[in-house]
Amino acid sequence: MSATEGGPDRSLYGLDILATPLLTDLYELNMFDAYLEAGMTETAVFEFFVRKLPPCRNFLVTAGLEQVVRFLEGARFGEAELDWLRRSGRFSERAIDRLAAFRFAGDVDAMPEGTVFFADEPVLRITAPLPEAQFLETRIINLLHFQILIASKAVRMVLAAGEDRTLIDFGLRRAHGAEAGLLAARAAYLAGFAGTATIPAEPAFGIPIFGTMAHSFIQAHDDETEAFLHFARARPASVVLLLDTYDTEAAARKVVALAPRLAAEGIAVGGVRLDSGDLAAHARRVRRILDEGGLREVRIFASGGVDEHLIATHRASGAPIDGYGIGTSLTTSNDWASLDCAYKLQEYAGKPRRKRSEGKATLPGRKQVWRRFDADGRMVGDTIALLEEPGEGEPLLQPVMRGGRTVAPLPSLEAARGRLARELRRLPAGLRGLATDHSYPVTVSPGLERLVASVNSQP
Amino acid sequence: MSATEGGPDRSLYGLDILATPLLTDLYELNMFDAYLEAGMTETAVFEFFVRKLPPCRNFLVTAGLEQVVRFLEGARFGEAELDWLRRSGRFSERAIDRLAAFRFAGDVDAMPEGTVFFADEPVLRITAPLPEAQFLETRIINLLHFQILIASKAVRMVLAAGEDRTLIDFGLRRAHGAEAGLLAARAAYLAGFAGTATIPAEPAFGIPIFGTMAHSFIQAHDDETEAFLHFARARPASVVLLLDTYDTEAAARKVVALAPRLAAEGIAVGGVRLDSGDLAAHARRVRRILDEGGLREVRIFASGGVDEHLIATHRASGAPIDGYGIGTSLTTSNDWASLDCAYKLQEYAGKPRRKRSEGKATLPGRKQVWRRFDADGRMVGDTIALLEEPGEGEPLLQPVMRGGRTVAPLPSLEAARGRLARELRRLPAGLRGLATDHSYPVTVSPGLERLVASVNSQP
Repeated sequence: MSATEGGPDRSLYGLDILATPLLTDLYELNMFDAYLEAGMTETAVFEFFVRKLPPCRNFLVTAGLEQVVRFLEGARFGEAELDWLRRSGRFSERAIDRLAAFRFAGDVDAMPEGTVFFADEPVLRITAPLPEAQFLETRIINLLHFQILIASKAVRMVLAAGEDRTLIDFGLRRAHGAEAGLLAARAAYLAGFAGTATIPAEPAFGIPIFGTMAHSFIQAHDDETEAFLHFARARPASVVLLLDTYDTEAAARKVVALAPRLAAEGIAVGGVRLDSGDLAAHARRVRRILDEGGLREVRIFASGGVDEHLIATHRASGAPIDGYGIGTSLTTSNDWASLDCAYKLQEYAGKPRRKRSEGKATLPGRKQVWRRFDADGRMVGDTIALLEEPGEGEPLLQPVMRGGRTVAPLPSLEAARGRLARELRRLPAGLRGLATDHSYPVTVSPGLERLVASVNSQP
Repeated sequence: MSATEGGPDRSLYGLDILATPLLTDLYELNMFDAYLEAGMTETAVFEFFVRKLPPCRNFLVTAGLEQVVRFLEGARFGEAELDWLRRSGRFSERAIDRLAAFRFAGDVDAMPEGTVFFADEPVLRITAPLPEAQFLETRIINLLHFQILIASKAVRMVLAAGEDRTLIDFGLRRAHGAEAGLLAARAAYLAGFAGTATIPAEPAFGIPIFGTMAHSFIQAHDDETEAFLHFARARPASVVLLLDTYDTEAAARKVVALAPRLAAEGIAVGGVRLDSGDLAAHARRVRRILDEGGLREVRIFASGGVDEHLIATHRASGAPIDGYGIGTSLTTSNDWASLDCAYKLQEYAGKPRRKRSEGKATLPGRKQVWRRFDADGRMVGDTIALLEEPGEGEPLLQPVMRGGRTVAPLPSLEAARGRLARELRRLPAGLRGLATDHSYPVTVSPGLERLVASVNSQP
């Protein structure tokens, strides 16, 4: 599979790694085979949850359910997969036959995308025959973990920015691969970003895309003003000029000098972008230059090393920045690049199951999360309960698939975005800030506590 | 594009995002169009480099060149892409026509995969008409950045582990999406890992894959010994039993009790795995139980929160651990999840170009990196020079593509892995450790210094 044999291979990796159910850990298929060998094909219940909030996250946000459902709906062992399974020599005929016939026919229950959640709360439940529920684990975690990670980071930026600053995802280049770039754009939009620079996010998800110019555009010209002029004439609908290639304030004065000439051609400068140095200080000086030059309507965008803390600092000091392009800190969640999440067996063949490993013990059984609100509609506490227990407040997990089919069309990305915007208005005040606040009460119901005790007392 | 309309779509995202040249930032195509409008289609030279070493990396490792070359060879605007370009209404007919005809026909020079490198050193150079060299930027960075990031993290683990401990990538589930999981497996193998749990890494890259069992396999059984027995009988070729689902040492004693019965069936227990608690302490107790039970040949593997620092601590204390499964810390490079890298215009139409932004100034012109060695073959210093300058030592950038075709078959992944293993033996001692050592001398040649001064003096 060298790059130079047999000409271009558009699939790049042989298998369609985005959709193939072979994108999993080998141990999943080893266990698949062993379950069949042992005759263990009864119904299993797995739940996905996050064990612990990172210190720099006060809450998390559900995201990625739509991708999980599409993966489950489309997961097939086609010829490429079956060929590999046979050639590998690792698996029994029985296992290969069962995989060849595989169609996901299980149940899925989940919190809708755009829901605020906390440690230990089940976010998604899969109910299916044990061998299948098991091997789907890896890609389900892979899809949920990443979008939850990014949405939960992005929402901090959205809260820090407030209502009047526009946030755009610029982070495809430093995202971890192609899918991370695309799904980060989705998670950020869900969290309240206005859009992304990543083109496929528009055809794939209907997300607004934005883009202006890079330093190389300026550098390729012998003269900065000429570069501005070329760009404005070629892209008159959205003229945002990049100021910091050589000298930010000098470039701002060039924009002022150029604006009347462009206006005569019917072209308005919409904005300028700053991408290096002390962004707040440059923004103040550029704002003054633009205002004195009669360009009060021209907006100032900032990018380059922006994160939620910088946004909050700018906002507190009243820096005249109208919007941000945010890259690395968003799409890699750079202060905390993973969540301690798990997809764990909670019940098999009708019997609750519990892992008791040190520091990683799980809550057995099928569960629901109930959320209570005060008279003003603010969240006041959650309870993790057994599914059959009565609860108080709003139950967060809802039926998504039954027998392999969605029970209703999934909410659109716009609906999920709207849901989260409403959720943010119901957050306790302390959780909205950037300082660590892990005070939100999440309790375990009496029924679930009794079940934990009874499962623990088993040998 | 809801998950429930029109049945399963195996492509998941409409476009083949792994191969499409539309996986880029919108500004790249805006500039493409503006370059054509301005008649700026002469040859441009872009170089990819890392601006700064992270504090927790003493050197970096090249990786991802093969994926860049395959992307360039296969990049086409097919019907799906052209349809989007036309529907979007953003681009001129001229731009769409030129994109429709696009085949990469430029030159690529690069350091071979598996080369040690440092800040500011060009790792890859693209020479192509300006509009094309520009829009390829985003995916080139996306592919190179991630594999360099992971290989440079993985190599620290390899150095910490020494020769006699096996390292396996377990990190697909928490990698950032599908491509990150697959390419992390590749970068880790290049760095010296023995293999991965990620199945498609075998068909895609020929990487050895490994896998045993999860806690859910134990939990699904009513009895732990029965679970061990079922697994061993179903997977007799590779019996690695997971000990920490309930009580690690109790499970080790069950393995000792079970071993003679399995031996009678011709099945040998190959190893055990610990996944929680104090791994070194458990390993010592388990080693004693196994040894006293006559199972001296059974190897102990550890996983769960492992990184290079834990490996080094275990090694220093002589913990009896034979191998590690490493997940999150590897595939997310969790202590430093991105590199400050760039792909910058260094020359256009035969004229050197320089960005002078604060903290982000670049070195203009086409460049070569020369590496010098002492009499023992140890690296002693690098010089970044102009391509036409004479240099001393070994030139690191080599021709890869000319006119869109590879000049020779790319080295195989095994060859790149071997190259890095040799490079590591030539590293100065201080750079091999985990403590920060940024003392390796990288200098700029006199010719390049003169060019910087002359470009700076331009208006």
